[in-house]
This record gives sequence, C-alpha cells and structure tokens, in this order.
Amino acid sequence: MNGEEPSSELTYLFHPKNIAVIGASENLNKFGGQVLYNLKLGNYQGNIFPINPKRDKVAGKTSYKTIKHVPEPLDLVISVIPNYQTPQTIEDCVDVAAKFVIINTAGFKEIAQFDENGMKYYNEIVRILKQAKGVTRTIGPNCMGLTCPISNLNAMLGFLPLAKKFEDFNISVTSQSGTWTWSVVNSANSHGVGIANAVSNGNELDLKFEDFVEYFGFYDNNTNAIVGYVEGFRNFTKIKKIAAEISEKKPIIILKGGRTESGAESARSHTSAIAGNYDIFKSFCNQTGIIEARNFNEIIGLARAIKIAHPDNYPKNNRVTIFTGGGGEGVIISDIIESCGLRLAKLQQHTIDNISTLLPPIWPHNNPVDTVGATNFVWMDIKKILEILIKDENTDIILIASPLMGARKGEFPPGLKDYVRLMMGIENITFEMIESFDKKMSKDIIRIAKKTDKLIIFTTIYYNAQETQEYKVLEDMFDNGILVVSDPEAGAQIIQKMLRYKNFFKIS
Amino acid sequence: MNGEEPSSELTYLFHPKNIAVIGASENLNKFGGQVLYNLKLGNYQGNIFPINPKRDKVAGKTSYKTIKHVPEPLDLVISVIPNYQTPQTIEDCVDVAAKFVIINTAGFKEIAQFDENGMKYYNEIVRILKQAKGVTRTIGPNCMGLTCPISNLNAMLGFLPLAKKFEDFNISVTSQSGTWTWSVVNSANSHGVGIANAVSNGNELDLKFEDFVEYFGFYDNNTNAIVGYVEGFRNFTKIKKIAAEISEKKPIIILKGGRTESGAESARSHTSAIAGNYDIFKSFCNQTGIIEARNFNEIIGLARAIKIAHPDNYPKNNRVTIFTGGGGEGVIISDIIESCGLRLAKLQQHTIDNISTLLPPIWPHNNPVDTVGATNFVWMDIKKILEILIKDENTDIILIASPLMGARKGEFPPGLKDYVRLMMGIENITFEMIESFDKKMSKDIIRIAKKTDKLIIFTTIYYNAQETQEYKVLEDMFDNGILVVSDPEAGAQIIQKMLRYKNFFKIS
Repeated sequence: MNGEEPSSELTYLFHPKNIAVIGASENLNKFGGQVLYNLKLGNYQGNIFPINPKRDKVAGKTSYKTIKHVPEPLDLVISVIPNYQTPQTIEDCVDVAAKFVIINTAGFKEIAQFDENGMKYYNEIVRILKQAKGVTRTIGPNCMGLTCPISNLNAMLGFLPLAKKFEDFNISVTSQSGTWTWSVVNSANSHGVGIANAVSNGNELDLKFEDFVEYFGFYDNNTNAIVGYVEGFRNFTKIKKIAAEISEKKPIIILKGGRTESGAESARSHTSAIAGNYDIFKSFCNQTGIIEARNFNEIIGLARAIKIAHPDNYPKNNRVTIFTGGGGEGVIISDIIESCGLRLAKLQQHTIDNISTLLPPIWPHNNPVDTVGATNFVWMDIKKILEILIKDENTDIILIASPLMGARKGEFPPGLKDYVRLMMGIENITFEMIESFDKKMSKDIIRIAKKTDKLIIFTTIYYNAQETQEYKVLEDMFDNGILVVSDPEAGAQIIQKMLRYKNFFKIS
Repeated sequence: MNGEEPSSELTYLFHPKNIAVIGASENLNKFGGQVLYNLKLGNYQGNIFPINPKRDKVAGKTSYKTIKHVPEPLDLVISVIPNYQTPQTIEDCVDVAAKFVIINTAGFKEIAQFDENGMKYYNEIVRILKQAKGVTRTIGPNCMGLTCPISNLNAMLGFLPLAKKFEDFNISVTSQSGTWTWSVVNSANSHGVGIANAVSNGNELDLKFEDFVEYFGFYDNNTNAIVGYVEGFRNFTKIKKIAAEISEKKPIIILKGGRTESGAESARSHTSAIAGNYDIFKSFCNQTGIIEARNFNEIIGLARAIKIAHPDNYPKNNRVTIFTGGGGEGVIISDIIESCGLRLAKLQQHTIDNISTLLPPIWPHNNPVDTVGATNFVWMDIKKILEILIKDENTDIILIASPLMGARKGEFPPGLKDYVRLMMGIENITFEMIESFDKKMSKDIIRIAKKTDKLIIFTTIYYNAQETQEYKVLEDMFDNGILVVSDPEAGAQIIQKMLRYKNFFKIS
C-alpha cells in the first residue's frame, strides 16, 4: 500500500459530513423522531437536513420537501418512511448522488410469504440501484441503523446513548439482527469493551455483512476485533477471500443464527436470509480462524478475553490449576475443564510443599487446590495460596472459584449479618465493610496477577454479562487483566476458543 | 403395606429424640462450636449433650467426659474431633448403642495417597462397625452433617439458618459433596423450593447415597422430589433395584461429578470415590427415569419446574411458541428450541389473524411472534398477544423473552430515565413506577396463565438461580405456575428433561 493509508468508500458511511433524515419528526414514538433525537444525543457535528414535505421546520431546523431540495451533496441519507414510498425515495437519492442510504423501513423481501407488495418494492429498489451503478449504496432495508462513536454518529432506532470508543480496545459490530446490534452496543462499554463502529445490516439488499467485515478489517484503524451475528452469508466468495487474513490481525467472533431447521425457518421470516448450512459454517470457521460464539453472553465474554489476551498475552498452554473452597466444586470444575479441551495442571512438588505449610494436613495435596474448610480463613485470604500458584511451572491458567462476599447496597444475603457477628465478632456489618473486604481481596489478586504472565480467571456469580452494572471490584480486576466470568463453564469455553484461535495463527 | 405407615431406621437419624456433640465448644471458628450453634439456631427441641473432657459446662449445658457418661440412650451423635481420636469414639458409640453417628472429621480414606494413617483409622472404624452388626450406623466421615427442618434439626457445619419446609413442595438432598448440600439448602427456599431433608454423605464409609435415596423415596412423606450429587455409586445393586420405582413417584435429579478423567481424578482426592463410568451412568438414567442435571443452576431449575409440573401439570407435548420483541432473538431461540429436542409450534390460522389485528402488517405472520418494533407498546403490553396465544391448539408451551423493565432500588440502567422521559413523557421516573409497571405486567401474565393448561416460560436476566434474592414480580409469577428462568437455553433444557421424564413414565 506504499505507505498510504488504506481507504474505502465506507469511510463516508461511518464518518459522514452531513446527513438527511427522510421522515424527520419530533415525535419520539416515531422512528423519524428517534433518529433525529439520537443524532442530537450523540452530538453529531455535521449538518442535519430534515426531510418532511408537510413542515417548514422540524426540531428547529429547516425542513425540505424532498431530498432534491437539499442544497448540499449528501454523504448519508436515513429513510424511515413506509415501504411503498421507499422506491421513489431511493430514486431521488440516486438522482442527487447521495453516497449512502440507510433504509430503516421494513416490509420488503421478508414479507413475501404473505404480502406480494413487499417483493415488488424490493425489486424496484434493486432495479434502481443497478442502474445507479454504485453511485448510491444502501444499508437495509429492515434495519436499525448504525453508530460510530469516533465521529459522534448515533444513528440507531430506539433509545440508545452514544457508546464510547476506548483508548485500548474497541470492537466493531455488524449484524443481521438490529436488536442484537443494539444490545451489543448497549452493554459493551459497561463490560470494559469499547465500540469503534456498529451497524445493523437488515436484509442486506446492497451492502452486506461481508462488506462491513472487509471495512472493519482492512480500513478501520480503530477496530481491534470484529463481532457479528449472521444468519446466512450472502456473498460467501468474498468472506472466504478475506476472512483468514483479517482474523489473523483482528479476531472475528460470530454468532450464527439459523443453525437448526427451526432457526433457519425463523430466519426466513426475519431477514429473508437463506440460512447457510451449519456444518459448512463450522468448517469455514475452522479453516479461517473465525471464532464461533454460542450465545450473547459468550460474545461479550470472548470480546473481553480478547481484550486481555490479544496479541501478546495468550496463555502459553492449556494447563489449568483450580483454586476452590469446596471439594465437590473442584470435581465439577475438573469435569468442565476437560470437557472444554483443557487439562488439569500437574502441580510441581514445591508448589504442593509450600501450600502444605498453609493448609490443614488433610488438604488433597493435588490440583484442584481445595482448602478443605480450613478454619483460619485462608480461603478468604486468597493471596498466600495465589503467590505460590503463580510460581508453578506446570500451570498456565489459574481458575479461582470466587470467595467474594459481594453485597449490594442495602441488600445483604440472608444470614450474613449473623454469620459475621458470630464468626468474626463484628457486631454490625455494613455494606462498606463488605465492600472493603472485597476491595482488599481484589487488590491482592491484582497485585499478584501483575507479577505473572499466567492467565488468571476469576469466576463469580456477581458477574453477569447481560446486566450493565457490575460490582466495582470486578471491573477493577478485569481492567487489570484478570478474566472475570460468571461461572467456570463460561470461562473454560472462552479459554478453549481463545487457545484454538491462538494455535490456528500460532501467535507467540 | 397393610395400611401401616412404612417405616425405616433412618427416621431416627432425621428425627432424633436427642443429640450428643463430641468436641462441643462455644468457639464458632471450631466445628464443634458451629454444630452447637446451628442446633440452637434451628431451635432443636430434644436434649443436647455436649461432650468435652476438659469442661463441666459448654454453652450453658452440662458437659460429659465421654459419651459413656451420658445418662440417656442416644439417637444421634455428632463427632468433630481429630481423625486419630475417632476410632475410639466410634467404639464408645457402639458400646452405648448410639443409633447414628455423624463423623464430620476428615482425613481418612481420601488422604491415603499421601498419608497412610488415614487408611489405618478408616479400617479401624470399618472393623468396629462390622463387629457392631448394625447397632450403630455412621454418616461420613468427611461430611458437613444434615438438616431436617420438620424436626428443627439443623446439624450442619458452617453458618446456615434452618431452612423451611413448604406446604406444597419439598425436596430432599443427598450429596457426596458437603458444600454442594450446603449450597442447595442455602438457596432452595429463596427460589420457591422447600427442604424436607438434606444430608452431606461425605466418604460414605457406612450409610450411602443409595440408602438416603431409599429413605426419601419410600419412607419420607415430606419429600416430593430427590436431588443428589454423586461421584460414584458405591452400592449400584441397590440403586438399580429402587431407582425406577422411586423416580416414578418422586422425580430424582442427579448431578454427576467425575464425568471426565480429570473429574474422576479429582473425585479420588475428594471423597475417595471411584467415579463411575459416565456412559454407564447415563444409560442407567435412561433406564430408570432419573433426570440428569448438568450444573448447579439446572438443579434448582429442574426442582422449580417439577414443583410446577408434577404430577398433573406437564405440558401436553413439545410444541413451543416464542413471543419476542426482536427478530434475531426469535431466530436464536428457535435454534435453541430445536437443539433441545423441542419443536416450533405451527400457529393456527385464527391465531395469526387475531395477532394481525394488533401488530403492524409487516409482522412475520408466523412463530416466533416478533412484534417488529411496533411503536404502540404492544411488546410491553404483553397481555393482548398472550390472550390470543393461549387459545392456539398447536401450542403446548409459550416462551416469553421478557420485556421487564426490572430495576433495583436506587440503581437504574443507564439511560432509562431519559428513555422514559422522552418516549412516555414521564419527567422523573422512580423505582416505584418501574416496580408498578412490572407488577402490572406480571399480574396480567398470571391472570392469563390461570386460564390455560399450557406451560408458560418467562425468560429474564433478572432471574438468577445462584443469587438468593429475586425480583418480587418473578417470585409472584413462579408461585403462580409460570416457569421463570434466566435464559431460553436454560428453559429449553429443563423442558426437554421434564418431557423426557414425563414420557418415560407416561404421566397424564
């Protein structure tokens, strides 16, 4: 590329100089109202041109009868008007050579099964775009729009504040489901993951999943990893060509909808996509290094793991040491570890000897390190054991089944007050005490984690990838490179996928 | 049984007239202190005899030098003294013909790999019990004790308030992991599940998993379902003989530890159990109707599902209708449904016609019922659609992907205030408003659920089987027969297992 910045037409889509909104309104119960409001909420700095033939002004801005009346060449047009009016609108956009049109409107190909008009309008748009020979490109129809925090572009339906781009790690999202895009954008930041770009592709009449992957992968420097939801690839030739090259640099995480016949049938009503054969999809992932996620939580979990690991910080191997306060839990987690293709580490003799100075003589002398109900609180005072474990050369990963006390303000687990009063002699435990206990533990773990290149996984019921508010100490640990997950199963599956990805590209 | 109540020796274990505690103490950091305190906390009504050779009184009660000095015949002895003193103690128990001894102490067979004394003490106890010919039976060693709320018996280590027996549904728990027993007891009540009995079996020197299943199954009228954690059956002949007969009346839910080689290896250090071959275990479950759970959350989930369904309330068949606010979510849930052996219901024409009067013309006219971003809040105002769906004769199960607003006091999801202000014109939303919105929705769903024998599953991130505090409206729904689960995957897996169980025994 001769030292020049690589460039793509799609740069104008995510960084438009100006935007027209066809069907602009102040009514937030209308899509046109939501788009206008969200653009404002994102503090978009370019010109916004409302299009509404019945009004002179919308939201304080001069309103135009049609797009043809707008005095500037347009980078981006957003159209929310009904399906039957849409072909004419696209015709107008082509006439003024608008670069991109987002068609939020639904009711085209996906309603073909019960309404023939949908297909008619769809075909008209296809015909218009074909004649336009690429002057105007479209996103949608039946989509929820897009967002690009770096250009203050917040053009999605529904109520959604502008996400943040982070200093260190940002994902770009492309998806054949709008609510899914919305959900990822809505929860990424509060789980320590920045957003570079996110787009809801809808029915992909023109621009497709593959085009966005290409743009994020090759042309957008803010993207560190790509996250997608796909029912079926519409341009398999293209994704086949680019997937491996991109995913080596920027991991691609995909959730596939329509894996089953029922899912494929539902996909037909949803995006009119012919859901691709799942076996083909899987072997395609295996051939390109694409990481497959199985549900929404895993999408967020994988993005978090990649933030921690990529590219220099992957665990060296798959040998896990389990640290737990319960023997049965140790057995259950051992099963999970092996089921996920990981191995129990065989502890070095000096590790066992050193732990024996801290635990009662009946501790198992083995991995899992189970504190066998030691009454000296070594389980809670996790740091002594952890200091020993990070020195074990047979261990790549340390999985802690958490001893957090974890309470929310004003909400104590039943019996906790009594427990603390009786066991520790503290008369009136407060939220602040629990907080400071957990804070101390997380500080200890963070301090020890900084001394090692082993991956530390902290599993706790207080982390929930679907809820936006996390317990503060968990955020601190994650920000310091500890992989916080809700349960060992989630953690082990993520690690297995990371290691498979790493081995595919032989990073490190 | 000639009209007589069936009886079992084990009745005395769970309903003892008196209890001696060997190693009694007031120090709650010692096991002897915890046992004594928990017995008091449970408000046990029988006589308690502390045994402590160094003291005249413990916790205000006369203390005895040895068990031989106790003036009454003993139903239950609890022993927490070190391993090397335990054989002599058991000898004493046999001498006074104490009916049952719980040996909490660890350090016997399970430490054989690194300390030969453990095996020596173990064999001594075995020899003593053999000579005693069943006069004295033991639980443990290396266990956490037991509890039976109906007899106010709260004899477990650690801090644990007495669980409640419910009017309508109680499980009995038996487990080769003590912390696991503890965890089930600790969370059952707050998830709408009562506890009849729970016992931590430890290393099962004498009384075994199979003995407790037999007692709960045949002899305990308070038990409606049996829940267990097992690494390996030690008396496979017995469980084979009784499992099918019991599980037909009282569903048996088992989590198997040591499914993999790693898990089996960990089990050896844990309970010294030779973890049984997993394939044999699975086919045994298939032959007897035992329901296998795969993790802790599923244990609680299955217990809840059985409370709702057993024996007259199982779904008629496996046809699921999905109700969702997002098309992609509908596809994803369709995949889950089929992957779990369930089917998408084919909606009747009148169902489709009736829904079409409520949703925009572009709704998919199909299952999943996706409200395609209808701006008239029909998604939030769930009752109209639900009223139609319960009349659909092709539907057995309705799965709702929840539109709860769900907030905790003082903790609003980011942006919610703005959303409500702008979309609904409410200036200052309060926790009470959200609560009343969710309350109204749950009331609507409950009212509709009462009119149908279809199973309604409500999936929501606000339900978490591991946390003890649930959102109030979720408890109300569950108490009214709606299966509340954390996500569609958890729900579908539970339903599949319920239906397989139902079909095995051809209930209904």
